[in-house]
Amino acid sequence: MPSKNHFSTLYLSAPDVIELVQRKGVEACLRGIADYIQSDFLRWGAFDKSARVASHSRDGVIELMPIADDQTYAFKYVNGHPKNTRWGLPTVMAFGVLADVATGVPLLLSELTLTTALRTAAMSAVAARALARPGARTMALIGNGAQSEFQALAFHHLLGVTTLRLFDTDPAATAKLQANLQGTGLRTVACSSTAEAVRGADVVTTVTADKSNATILTPDLLVPGMHINAVGGDCPGKTELHADVLRQAQVFVEYTPQTRIEGDIQQLPADFVVTELWEVLAGQHTGRASDAAVTVFDSVGFALEDFSALRFLRDAATELGMGQPIELIPQLSDPKNLFGLLRTHNPLLRAAA
Amino acid sequence: MPSKNHFSTLYLSAPDVIELVQRKGVEACLRGIADYIQSDFLRWGAFDKSARVASHSRDGVIELMPIADDQTYAFKYVNGHPKNTRWGLPTVMAFGVLADVATGVPLLLSELTLTTALRTAAMSAVAARALARPGARTMALIGNGAQSEFQALAFHHLLGVTTLRLFDTDPAATAKLQANLQGTGLRTVACSSTAEAVRGADVVTTVTADKSNATILTPDLLVPGMHINAVGGDCPGKTELHADVLRQAQVFVEYTPQTRIEGDIQQLPADFVVTELWEVLAGQHTGRASDAAVTVFDSVGFALEDFSALRFLRDAATELGMGQPIELIPQLSDPKNLFGLLRTHNPLLRAAA
Repeated sequence: MPSKNHFSTLYLSAPDVIELVQRKGVEACLRGIADYIQSDFLRWGAFDKSARVASHSRDGVIELMPIADDQTYAFKYVNGHPKNTRWGLPTVMAFGVLADVATGVPLLLSELTLTTALRTAAMSAVAARALARPGARTMALIGNGAQSEFQALAFHHLLGVTTLRLFDTDPAATAKLQANLQGTGLRTVACSSTAEAVRGADVVTTVTADKSNATILTPDLLVPGMHINAVGGDCPGKTELHADVLRQAQVFVEYTPQTRIEGDIQQLPADFVVTELWEVLAGQHTGRASDAAVTVFDSVGFALEDFSALRFLRDAATELGMGQPIELIPQLSDPKNLFGLLRTHNPLLRAAA
Repeated sequence: MPSKNHFSTLYLSAPDVIELVQRKGVEACLRGIADYIQSDFLRWGAFDKSARVASHSRDGVIELMPIADDQTYAFKYVNGHPKNTRWGLPTVMAFGVLADVATGVPLLLSELTLTTALRTAAMSAVAARALARPGARTMALIGNGAQSEFQALAFHHLLGVTTLRLFDTDPAATAKLQANLQGTGLRTVACSSTAEAVRGADVVTTVTADKSNATILTPDLLVPGMHINAVGGDCPGKTELHADVLRQAQVFVEYTPQTRIEGDIQQLPADFVVTELWEVLAGQHTGRASDAAVTVFDSVGFALEDFSALRFLRDAATELGMGQPIELIPQLSDPKNLFGLLRTHNPLLRAAA
C-alpha cells in the first residue's frame, strides 16, 4: 500500500526554491542535479519518452514536457518569449509536477524558472565531462544573459574551468555577469567579439536568446579538440551554429526526435548522424573520437532533465523541511461520492446565511 | 501593455472551488459552464487543437490536455485510475492552468477534480440540447458513480428532465445517488437492469467506469428518437456501446482525431462517418435528421471544455473575491538577471547565521 505522503501534494514556490538554493548553496545544487541527471540518463530505457508539445504564437511558445518511468510521472510547463523583458518578465518561466504513476496523485508542484537554469547548466556540465578533453580550463561564454552565471558556475565546479572569455552584443550583460561572478574564484575576460572570446578556449558555450536563425559560430573559429556546448538554439527557427560547424564535428544530442525539430541540427537532413548522450554515459558508444576532434553538444533541454531536477528538489525540500502541503486534490471521505463534497459543512456559508 | 493582473498567478484550491460552487449554487455553475462551452465551441476555428498526450501504465493513465486561442492558453492534468477507490482516492483527479499567450505567464492554477465533473455534465447537456428531441423528460442513467449526480442535475436544469431511471451493478451506488438527489425535484426510479432502466427513456446516459470494453447498450434496447449520451467510454480499450448501436445511429463527437482513439467509435473503421458537435451548434450541419433517428454523443472530454471551465472559474472567483495569489514565478527586479535572485536579502538565512 502506498505511504501517506503518496496522497498529498507538496508546493514549492519560487521564494521557497530560492531559499532552498541559498541554504544548500549553488555548487551543491548543481552537483546534486548533475548526479540525478547522470543516474536517470543511465536508466534511459526505463522512460516513456516523447518530444514536447509546443504551442507557438506570434511572440513566443508555451510547451508541456511530460515523461515517466514505471513509478514516477513528471511534466514541466515552460514558455519562451524573447520580448518579455519589455514587461519586466523573464523570457523563460517554468513550473512542474511530479506525480505517482500508481495512483495519479500529484506529489510535488514546484517553481522551475530558477531550477531550469540550474538543470540546463548541470546538463551541459554532465555532457562536457563526457565529451570535452580532460584538463579543460578556459571557456568562451557567448551570450551573457540570464542563463550565463549558471553555465559559468557549473563548468567551474564540475569541470574545473577557471577562466571565462566573455562576449555579448550588449556590454551591460557582460558587466552584470562579471559582477555576479565576483568572489567565485572564476577569472573573467571581457572580449569585443565572438572571435576574440573563443581564442584559446577549450570549451565554447553559446547561450544567446534571439528567436532567429543566427550564426554565432562559424567554421573558421573551430580549433582541433574544442568542445562546443550549444545551448541557445532550442526551437524551430532558432539556431546558433553555422551548418558547417555541425558537419565538421561529432554531434551529440539528448533525445534525437526532439533535437531534429528544435536543435541546431534542424538545419541538416534527417539522416545526419548524431549520437545520443546517454549512450556515451552508459559506455555503449564512444564519445570524443580523438584529442583533435571537435565535439558539439546540441542541447535543447529534454523532459528527463526536469524529471531529475524535480526529484532533486523533492529530496532537498524533505531534507530541509521546506514547502507547504496544498489541497490541489480534494480530500474525500468517500471517493465514490464526489458530489458529497458539496454537502459538507461550510462555516463561511453558515455565517453568511 | 498588459495589465498588472497579467503578471501574477491566482490559485484556487479544491476547498476554494467547493466553496465557490456552494456559494454560486450547482445550477448556476452548470449553466455558467455550459454558456462558456457553447460560446467557445462557436469559436472552434480560433483554437490551436491537438489530441491529448497520454501516459499509460498498468493501473491507469495520466494525461495532459493543452489548447490555446490567440490570447489564452490552457491545459489540464488529469488521471484515470479505476482501482483508486481502494486507497480512498478518486478515480479521476485533475488540475489545470490558464496562461497568457502574449507572455507565457500562468494566470490561474485551479483544482479541476470537482470541476471536471461539472464541465463533463455541462458538455453533455449542451450536446443534448442540440441533439435530443424537444420535450425529453425521462433519462436513464446507467452507472451511478462519482459523475452521476452532475449528469442528473445538468439534464434537470438545462434540458428539463424530471424523471431518472437508474441502474448500477452496485445497488449502493444507486442508493447514494438517490440520497444525494433528495430535494432537487428529480423523481428517481431504481431499476434492476439496464434494459429496465432504458424503458420509456428519451435520453440514455451511460457513465460507467470499468477500464475495459464493456457492452452496456445493445441494439435491441434502441427505440426510435432516443438520444444516447455516452460518457464512460473515453480511452483506448474502454467502451460502453455495442458497435451496432453506433452503426444504427447518427454519431456526434467533440474533436474527431481524439475520439477516433478514445471514444466508442474506436471499435469502428477510421472512415465511419461522424459529425463534430460544433458544426451543429454553429448551424453548419444538421443535428438530428428526424424525430425517429437515434443520436449518439460519443463524449470523451476535450481540452476546450476545460478551457471554458477555467475561464468560468476565473470570472467567478474574481466576482466573489476568492483565491490566493501565489508566487509560482519569481518576481525579478531585473529580468535579465535571474542569478540576482540568489543574491537577494534572506532574513531566514541571516537568522540562521
